[in-house]
Amino acid sequence: MKKEELSALIRQKASFLCVGLDTDPGLIPPFLAGESEDPVFEFNRRIIDATIDLAVAYKPNMAFYEQMGSKGWKSLERTMDYLREHPAGPVFTIADAKRADIGNTSQRYARAFFDQLGFDAITVNPYLGHDSVKPFLEHEDKWAIVLALTSNAGAMDFQILQPQLPLLLEKFGIKTCFRKKLFELVIEESQKWGSPENMMFVTGATHPEQLKNVRELAPDHFLLLPGIGAQGAKLSDIARVTLNKDAGIIVNSSRAIIYAGEGQDFQSKAREAAMALQREMAQLLGQ
Amino acid sequence: MKKEELSALIRQKASFLCVGLDTDPGLIPPFLAGESEDPVFEFNRRIIDATIDLAVAYKPNMAFYEQMGSKGWKSLERTMDYLREHPAGPVFTIADAKRADIGNTSQRYARAFFDQLGFDAITVNPYLGHDSVKPFLEHEDKWAIVLALTSNAGAMDFQILQPQLPLLLEKFGIKTCFRKKLFELVIEESQKWGSPENMMFVTGATHPEQLKNVRELAPDHFLLLPGIGAQGAKLSDIARVTLNKDAGIIVNSSRAIIYAGEGQDFQSKAREAAMALQREMAQLLGQ
Repeated sequence: MKKEELSALIRQKASFLCVGLDTDPGLIPPFLAGESEDPVFEFNRRIIDATIDLAVAYKPNMAFYEQMGSKGWKSLERTMDYLREHPAGPVFTIADAKRADIGNTSQRYARAFFDQLGFDAITVNPYLGHDSVKPFLEHEDKWAIVLALTSNAGAMDFQILQPQLPLLLEKFGIKTCFRKKLFELVIEESQKWGSPENMMFVTGATHPEQLKNVRELAPDHFLLLPGIGAQGAKLSDIARVTLNKDAGIIVNSSRAIIYAGEGQDFQSKAREAAMALQREMAQLLGQ
Repeated sequence: MKKEELSALIRQKASFLCVGLDTDPGLIPPFLAGESEDPVFEFNRRIIDATIDLAVAYKPNMAFYEQMGSKGWKSLERTMDYLREHPAGPVFTIADAKRADIGNTSQRYARAFFDQLGFDAITVNPYLGHDSVKPFLEHEDKWAIVLALTSNAGAMDFQILQPQLPLLLEKFGIKTCFRKKLFELVIEESQKWGSPENMMFVTGATHPEQLKNVRELAPDHFLLLPGIGAQGAKLSDIARVTLNKDAGIIVNSSRAIIYAGEGQDFQSKAREAAMALQREMAQLLGQ
C-alpha cells in the first residue's frame, strides 16, 4: 500500500486505529474450539468482521502464532488470506515481528513476510544497522517500521542513553557524538536508508513527553504508536503532538479490543471497544 | 543443556564447531527434490549425519524456514525431532531467531522455541532491554544468546557508538555514562539479568580486535562467534583471545560447510569442510 492510499483510508474511515491480533489459544472464548478446527483463525475472522469498518490496520503479533508451531503459522496464513479477500478491504497489514539480521538473512525475512504472507509492513529492530534494514526497503509499496522508542520498561536500558554532559560541552562549542539519545540517533540515521514512502517508526505511546521531539525529528514519517489503553497513555495527548498533514499516525490497541469480551458476545464487545476509540479518533482528525 | 554438559561435549568431540543450517530451497542440490517431499528436511538430515561427530551445535537460521511459510516451519520441526532423537546425540541446538519484544510477547517466543521446537538456546536482540530478555532466562537449562557485536557492516551504525571525549573527561575525574561503546554496555548491563549458566553473547568473529575486550568484560560466559570463513576471520586469532577454562566459545560456520558441494557428493564435501575446522579446533583446544 502506498502512503497516499493509507492517508486516504484514514480520512475515509475517520480512524487511525490498528487492531493488534495478539491471539492466544488460552485466552480466546472456549466455545470456539468446539466450532472450528482452527479456533485461532476463527477468532481472528470474527474480530476482523466486527471491526473492519472501524480500523485501518491489523497487526498480528508473530510470537502468538509461533508458540503453536507450524499450526500457528497456518492460522496466520489463513488470517492473511481472509484479510486480503475481505469485501470491506483493503486494510494495511503489519507483521509485528521485530526482525532484522545480516543482509542475506533479512532478505529472506522480507520474502517471508511480504511475498509469502503478503503483509504491507513489518516491524524491524535497528540494532544491527543499515544492511539489516535495507532489504526490507527494496520491495515496492512495502514498509519497514523501525523500532525507535518502545513502550516497555526496558526501553530505558539502552534506547534513552546519552552522555550527561552534552549541553555543558555544547556551551563551549564542543559537539559530542552523543548529544542525542540512542533512539533519536536511530530515527536520524535510519532516515538515510529509506524515505517516508517506505519507512515508519515505532514510538511507544507510553512516552508522550518524547513524542513531540520524535515528530520534529521525523516530520513526514508515519508513526506506529503502541501502548494506549492497558499501558495508560491518553489518545488526545498523543494525537495532539503527532498528527501531521497526512494524518501520519497509526495507533494500536490489542488486548483492550480483542479480549473486551470473554463469552458468546466477544464480537460485539470488541466492536464496542473499537468504536469508542474510532469515535475519539474521528473527533481528533476533525480538529 | 547445562553449561558443564556443553563443556564436556566440547572436550569429548575436541570441537567447538556449530553448523549453521541456513538451508535455502534454491541452493540445495536439485536432485533432492526428486527424492523427497520435504527436500529441505532431507538436506538437513544428510548434513547432520555427515557432520554430527564433528560438531557440538547446530544453528538453524529462522529466516530460511520462514520464507517458505508453514511448510518451512514444518521442515524445521522435523529437523529438530531428528536432532533430538539422533543416536550420535545430544548436541546443543540454537535457534538463530534474533527475537525480543515486550515481556508478555517474549514469553510466547520462549515457548515457541524452547517448548514447542525444543531448542536449547535462542539468539535475542538487546535493544528492548531487560524485560524483553528475562522471559528467555526463566526456562531451566535453556539459554538466551544476547547480540552484542554482530558480524555485519551495520554493526558500526549503533553498536560501537561512544562519545568522542570520555577519555579526556575522565582525566579530569568526570565520568560520562558513555565511557563505553554501546555493545560493551550491553554486555555489562545484561549480565545483571542472568548468569553464565543461562546467557551467552554473540560477538562477530569479524572484529578480532574487539574480542579480547569482550572476554575481559565477560570472562565466564560462552561466546557465539559467527563470521569465520566467508567473512574472513582466522580461527586461531579468535580462539587465542576467547578460549577460557570451560572452552567458552562456539564458532559457527554455515555456507562454507553446507554448500561446500553442489551435487551428489554434497555430504562428503560438507564433511570435509567440517573436519578441516574440527581438526584446527582440536589443536587449539590441546594447546
